[in-house]
Amino acid sequence: MERFTVGRDRELDVYLAEFDVLGNLAHATMLETIGLLTAEDLAALRAELKVIYAQIQEGTFVIEEGVEDVHSQVELLLTRKLGDVGKKIHSGRSRNDQVLVDLKLYTRDRLWQVVRATQHLFEVLSRRSEQHKDDLLPGYTHLQIAMPSSFGLWFGAYAEALIDDVVQLQAAYRLANRNPLGSGAGYGSSFPLNRTLTTELLGFEGMHHNVVYAQMSRGRTEQAALTALASLAATVSRLAMDVCLYNSQNFGFIVLPDDLTTGSSIMPHKKNPDVAELLRAKTNRLKALPMEVTLVLSNLPSGYHRDMQLLKEILMPAFDEVLDCLDIAAFMLEHMQVKPNLLDEAKYDLLFSVERVNALVMQGVPFRDAYRQVGKEIGEGTYAPPRALQHTHEGSIGNLQTTEITARMQAELARFGFDQVEKALQNLLEA
Amino acid sequence: MERFTVGRDRELDVYLAEFDVLGNLAHATMLETIGLLTAEDLAALRAELKVIYAQIQEGTFVIEEGVEDVHSQVELLLTRKLGDVGKKIHSGRSRNDQVLVDLKLYTRDRLWQVVRATQHLFEVLSRRSEQHKDDLLPGYTHLQIAMPSSFGLWFGAYAEALIDDVVQLQAAYRLANRNPLGSGAGYGSSFPLNRTLTTELLGFEGMHHNVVYAQMSRGRTEQAALTALASLAATVSRLAMDVCLYNSQNFGFIVLPDDLTTGSSIMPHKKNPDVAELLRAKTNRLKALPMEVTLVLSNLPSGYHRDMQLLKEILMPAFDEVLDCLDIAAFMLEHMQVKPNLLDEAKYDLLFSVERVNALVMQGVPFRDAYRQVGKEIGEGTYAPPRALQHTHEGSIGNLQTTEITARMQAELARFGFDQVEKALQNLLEA
Amino acid sequence: MERFTVGRDRELDVYLAEFDVLGNLAHATMLETIGLLTAEDLAALRAELKVIYAQIQEGTFVIEEGVEDVHSQVELLLTRKLGDVGKKIHSGRSRNDQVLVDLKLYTRDRLWQVVRATQHLFEVLSRRSEQHKDDLLPGYTHLQIAMPSSFGLWFGAYAEALIDDVVQLQAAYRLANRNPLGSGAGYGSSFPLNRTLTTELLGFEGMHHNVVYAQMSRGRTEQAALTALASLAATVSRLAMDVCLYNSQNFGFIVLPDDLTTGSSIMPHKKNPDVAELLRAKTNRLKALPMEVTLVLSNLPSGYHRDMQLLKEILMPAFDEVLDCLDIAAFMLEHMQVKPNLLDEAKYDLLFSVERVNALVMQGVPFRDAYRQVGKEIGEGTYAPPRALQHTHEGSIGNLQTTEITARMQAELARFGFDQVEKALQNLLEA
Amino acid sequence: MERFTVGRDRELDVYLAEFDVLGNLAHATMLETIGLLTAEDLAALRAELKVIYAQIQEGTFVIEEGVEDVHSQVELLLTRKLGDVGKKIHSGRSRNDQVLVDLKLYTRDRLWQVVRATQHLFEVLSRRSEQHKDDLLPGYTHLQIAMPSSFGLWFGAYAEALIDDVVQLQAAYRLANRNPLGSGAGYGSSFPLNRTLTTELLGFEGMHHNVVYAQMSRGRTEQAALTALASLAATVSRLAMDVCLYNSQNFGFIVLPDDLTTGSSIMPHKKNPDVAELLRAKTNRLKALPMEVTLVLSNLPSGYHRDMQLLKEILMPAFDEVLDCLDIAAFMLEHMQVKPNLLDEAKYDLLFSVERVNALVMQGVPFRDAYRQVGKEIGEGTYAPPRALQHTHEGSIGNLQTTEITARMQAELARFGFDQVEKALQNLLEA
Repeated sequence: MERFTVGRDRELDVYLAEFDVLGNLAHATMLETIGLLTAEDLAALRAELKVIYAQIQEGTFVIEEGVEDVHSQVELLLTRKLGDVGKKIHSGRSRNDQVLVDLKLYTRDRLWQVVRATQHLFEVLSRRSEQHKDDLLPGYTHLQIAMPSSFGLWFGAYAEALIDDVVQLQAAYRLANRNPLGSGAGYGSSFPLNRTLTTELLGFEGMHHNVVYAQMSRGRTEQAALTALASLAATVSRLAMDVCLYNSQNFGFIVLPDDLTTGSSIMPHKKNPDVAELLRAKTNRLKALPMEVTLVLSNLPSGYHRDMQLLKEILMPAFDEVLDCLDIAAFMLEHMQVKPNLLDEAKYDLLFSVERVNALVMQGVPFRDAYRQVGKEIGEGTYAPPRALQHTHEGSIGNLQTTEITARMQAELARFGFDQVEKALQNLLEA
Repeated sequence: MERFTVGRDRELDVYLAEFDVLGNLAHATMLETIGLLTAEDLAALRAELKVIYAQIQEGTFVIEEGVEDVHSQVELLLTRKLGDVGKKIHSGRSRNDQVLVDLKLYTRDRLWQVVRATQHLFEVLSRRSEQHKDDLLPGYTHLQIAMPSSFGLWFGAYAEALIDDVVQLQAAYRLANRNPLGSGAGYGSSFPLNRTLTTELLGFEGMHHNVVYAQMSRGRTEQAALTALASLAATVSRLAMDVCLYNSQNFGFIVLPDDLTTGSSIMPHKKNPDVAELLRAKTNRLKALPMEVTLVLSNLPSGYHRDMQLLKEILMPAFDEVLDCLDIAAFMLEHMQVKPNLLDEAKYDLLFSVERVNALVMQGVPFRDAYRQVGKEIGEGTYAPPRALQHTHEGSIGNLQTTEITARMQAELARFGFDQVEKALQNLLEA
Repeated sequence: MERFTVGRDRELDVYLAEFDVLGNLAHATMLETIGLLTAEDLAALRAELKVIYAQIQEGTFVIEEGVEDVHSQVELLLTRKLGDVGKKIHSGRSRNDQVLVDLKLYTRDRLWQVVRATQHLFEVLSRRSEQHKDDLLPGYTHLQIAMPSSFGLWFGAYAEALIDDVVQLQAAYRLANRNPLGSGAGYGSSFPLNRTLTTELLGFEGMHHNVVYAQMSRGRTEQAALTALASLAATVSRLAMDVCLYNSQNFGFIVLPDDLTTGSSIMPHKKNPDVAELLRAKTNRLKALPMEVTLVLSNLPSGYHRDMQLLKEILMPAFDEVLDCLDIAAFMLEHMQVKPNLLDEAKYDLLFSVERVNALVMQGVPFRDAYRQVGKEIGEGTYAPPRALQHTHEGSIGNLQTTEITARMQAELARFGFDQVEKALQNLLEA
Repeated sequence: MERFTVGRDRELDVYLAEFDVLGNLAHATMLETIGLLTAEDLAALRAELKVIYAQIQEGTFVIEEGVEDVHSQVELLLTRKLGDVGKKIHSGRSRNDQVLVDLKLYTRDRLWQVVRATQHLFEVLSRRSEQHKDDLLPGYTHLQIAMPSSFGLWFGAYAEALIDDVVQLQAAYRLANRNPLGSGAGYGSSFPLNRTLTTELLGFEGMHHNVVYAQMSRGRTEQAALTALASLAATVSRLAMDVCLYNSQNFGFIVLPDDLTTGSSIMPHKKNPDVAELLRAKTNRLKALPMEVTLVLSNLPSGYHRDMQLLKEILMPAFDEVLDCLDIAAFMLEHMQVKPNLLDEAKYDLLFSVERVNALVMQGVPFRDAYRQVGKEIGEGTYAPPRALQHTHEGSIGNLQTTEITARMQAELARFGFDQVEKALQNLLEA
């Protein structure tokens, strides 16, 4: 029964510890302003909370045997030191909004970590895109060879994809960045709480005003975060699929570093891309997580239900997994070798047929005639693939626009306003 | 075979017609600036495209028998009138980026329609929230009666929920609001296209720079849109669940209008909430659609695949369904009656026990003593529920903050910048 | 409102018409045995129901304007002809168990159609497997070339896969093959119904005994059917993925017939496998349908809800789609050409290295030494791939066991007992 | 990197240990018959494998530091004791079919454990159904009170539901109960393996004949098992939803034991059904797992991919979770109190209106007149609810058919043929 109800709570709650302290600091500070704590109470609580915070930072904080969760552990430490003052901090708060504010702060923090890791992957991709802008690659449609592409385009495409992932992460971040503190068990309180103050102290963009909605955001915050992670995972998973395919002898476009492949005991020719495959599998699996949350929440009437507690087990490991996947992907892309001169092989000659037609059109030949002429050349074996490409427009092989794309990423990152969050939290800790 | 490959394309493509004309106008205008159309060609094409646009607005545009899709139909009309000039418009473009730009424009437009319908539902909810701010309702946690709530809070909670839905719709909108035109089949073109120009002409926030990524946004744009619709659907579905429950005789909190219920031929006491149930079912079903897209796209290597064509059948009916659901929800909420004085029933007396404890605490009694005293009162039958609530903090029963919440919705709507899109499209049509 | 509540009911209900007549025949026959219909009533009803059945078979049955659903239409036809006798047939039945029995009969029928179409695909695959048992193909693991395979194995693998799909279809079939008639609205009836009799008349394997469970099987029957279809779809989708890959120039293992590919207006080398891609997309999409049902049903308390009505819109088109996909897959496999002598290319030489090692082991060389020797041969360029394979064990290249696999399929088909169902229904119609 | 690739393999592999030994025993026994092991080799291997098996049973078997997985650990133990003989066991086998046979044996075993736990829950439900056959309960449709039901019907409905879950578990079991051993890496072997023999030794129903299909069953076996678990989870989740609702003060049909509820520190009236809520949440979450597998497998071409390794992390914890949920559900149902005489409350009077109408019809009054008469009685306040119910037909309140339902469960259990499996494994260990 214990195992069934507690589950992985104690293990996962450690992630929440620092945020629980921050929430406590903000709540206590506010309680003092409305007369529910004295200045001395507040000073004592602040001092002790900072000690706990330091323990968490040092890794010495633990949830003791027999203590149910992180909130009880912090409470225990406070009352052990401060007696009844340690209990006063719970005025005007229920366990529900306490957990909720911790989850909001945690989710906001982890989303920002994911954004930072995404930015790193973006930089690796951009660098490799520039480095290989002249290394051509067959471009496929329908898995049929179609037109010339390049490693510059291929790496750059995934870089730009990450910007749209950041846009989606931003929506999730904004949902996490709202203060639920003061909503109690979802029906508010008869104490004259100052929710505007805790909103500012914790650096939130704003508050969930309506207390019923504040509680309703439980589950939904997790859902939004996981949806954004799933979107990011889809980008990485497609990249991993390309890598597995390009690493097959039938494509042979790239060489993976030995750390990332495994051989076969009796087939010396094999370089199995195990890491890319696991990256693909793990990111594909992550795409299912929003559905897990959906299934837990579906058709629950409004109001808190214990079901929501289970969502921590879905959300928290997902953040770790995504951060791992982003690291591994960056490592893989950094160390992957790209085969040069791929399009010199005769089997790719026809990739250039459109170039030939367009060149004739630009010289004034009507399209239909140009097309017929090239068809005839191909048929008669006189077609010479025009390997020197002249793609100049925005975003094409010859004009990758890495600068513009990078500027766009910077602009998206700036919209998060994480600096202000950091400043607020520092103030809260140091005040 | 025909049925298998064409599917519902011809039926659904009608939705794309107006956007195909807009895309054609922008592309033609650009082609003239780079010398691939003469000024006369452009004038002729513009004139004819405007005729087609008018037909679409009037509802007289049809995809003729034997014509594969909307793009071919527009092409046919142009060449029928203008001969070879009608064909020149396809220089520097492939069917892939043509379809893609149509889908972007369509999705941007429909997302805006959804936002507008969401705004309408928000207004209904806000109005009813204010109207019933004094009508109390039991507040539940774990489906157990817990603390006093109100219809003001309940309606208002769903209003505020819609703001977060709008935040998520915005992310989807921003992904749709990027120009893929000029990316060809995903590998760009050797023509010196001016993609910046078409981006401006079509009112896009910016372009998908990298041409490989532009093509990769196929599927992803649909996915992002459906994810946002699923989030909105989840809000409406939870609302519908509450309505079904509150309409049960065991709750008995609301009365649904007769239009929205069905009776039973032999059980005169029944008012089956069929419409609320269908609303719940339809919105729950919508929550599955992002997964449908995910399944179609999973593990497809980069590059266009015909699979993506199927996504139209998922996306387009979903927009219609969501718009219907929002309409019905607004109608239902507008016409639902709320039962007054619910908390006067003795069975809800204990809802007020926390109020009583808090009141004692505010008078200076330590929490523990206050709690004991109230417990004793309840035990001895001397407990008198303090029905006059004094909830004053932000977002509580006595302080719904409808003004602040409405201001937040306005601010989110303004971030879409739809005015500028409308202006750009008008310019394009009238230039 | 009408559109919202009726949805596609009238269109889809036509599928149920013949089953509604069968359900009516069984119910009426039973009512007569318990004295709720006279022998004359029954004779009149039977005669008229058979007229309606004939109309349905001929395709002349329609649901008239203003009539809500198929059940009302049948009722209308009966009362139009027979007056009050037409109404008596509803004694001891509610709309709920009437719809439910229709859905059971429909689902049972369609699952059997799917099984038959699966059997046809199985036969095509088995035939092609035998036909190409000597045409070798590279065998991959990790998308790396690994060991020799053959088209015989490849076709045969999908044939055998279909047997396991049939096993899963059987479970769904057994859930559909239970009689809910007599369960009323889910709480039975005070009439002395003989449910055993209707169970026999309709050829069901047995009844859903408990009337609450009978109603609970609504949704679950659809779910089980869609789950089985999803499993089958997964098999076809993987097959389609292989086809798309093998059709790529980088593999080049097969040639698709022209009916199944589309070319490119300017790239004459392309044979885009559009049909295989759509087959892949459609079957992948089908895999989402069980989740749609799950989302509609999740957390609904027991008892009928109108939500369940929506499931028809998910189930019925799915059957049509699956049957189409099976047809197309069979056509594609029948007309696909297989390239001979693929493994003669030098790049596949190393596929045979394991054969060489094993041959040495069979000659008594210890494995480690054999492995070293072959490694050395490869290194020194003296390795000669032993192209003549000696695979003899069950299920290997040289021993495909098509006979055994076919026998297994036959045995699974026999377990359905569809003959008896057909006999029962014929008796019911002809009695 | 290590953490990324190994993941939870070492932890989860302990589950496979006993099955790895069984697979080794069968393979070794077969190798001796085809001359790849001597009789002495076999005797030595058998003796040592039995020692390892005993260690596993005693819980002293561990995967040593630095050893990759359970297969390597068993191999290490064998070679440590037997030197080269320990290596000979790997002739004619690859890691792929070794893992696969372990997974098949594991899955078959765990499915049978789940079936047994389901049987236990079935028995509890059946017992309570009989015990409370006279305790009436309101029957709902559309969450509106509709007709009389009973706890007998309610408990019994879930009992019968479990039979259909067992039918679905059976399909999964049959997919797991097929021998893949001898399929190597998916392309068989040039050794003259006797796969029929290992099939018999391991008690399999039959073999996966085609070696490519044998490998293709990887993932699919897990998928089928998780699909069946999801079906079972859906039954339990609906039950838990009913419990949470019935435990609400607004229904008040049941009383949960104190072990299964939590109170509130200040709301003495609350009995929060935390355990039922977690049961609901966990079972709802389980319903997502088939989709996780689907996402990992979707669009992977045929042949082994490392992605499949990740499926162990989905499958294995799911079995533990389901078994826990079944235990908890049985405990909850066993200890739940049922409130008597619920329908005596006046608010449920109208539940009996249909009874009244039917009684008149049975007395010969035409339905329409009977209906009018009852309507009139209700309107005039002369309606007296006929509380003495006369439901006699199969599966109705008065005729629960617990015996028939139990017999059906027995028949389904017998179809698994698990006795023979046990006998085969015992023979293999004792031979």
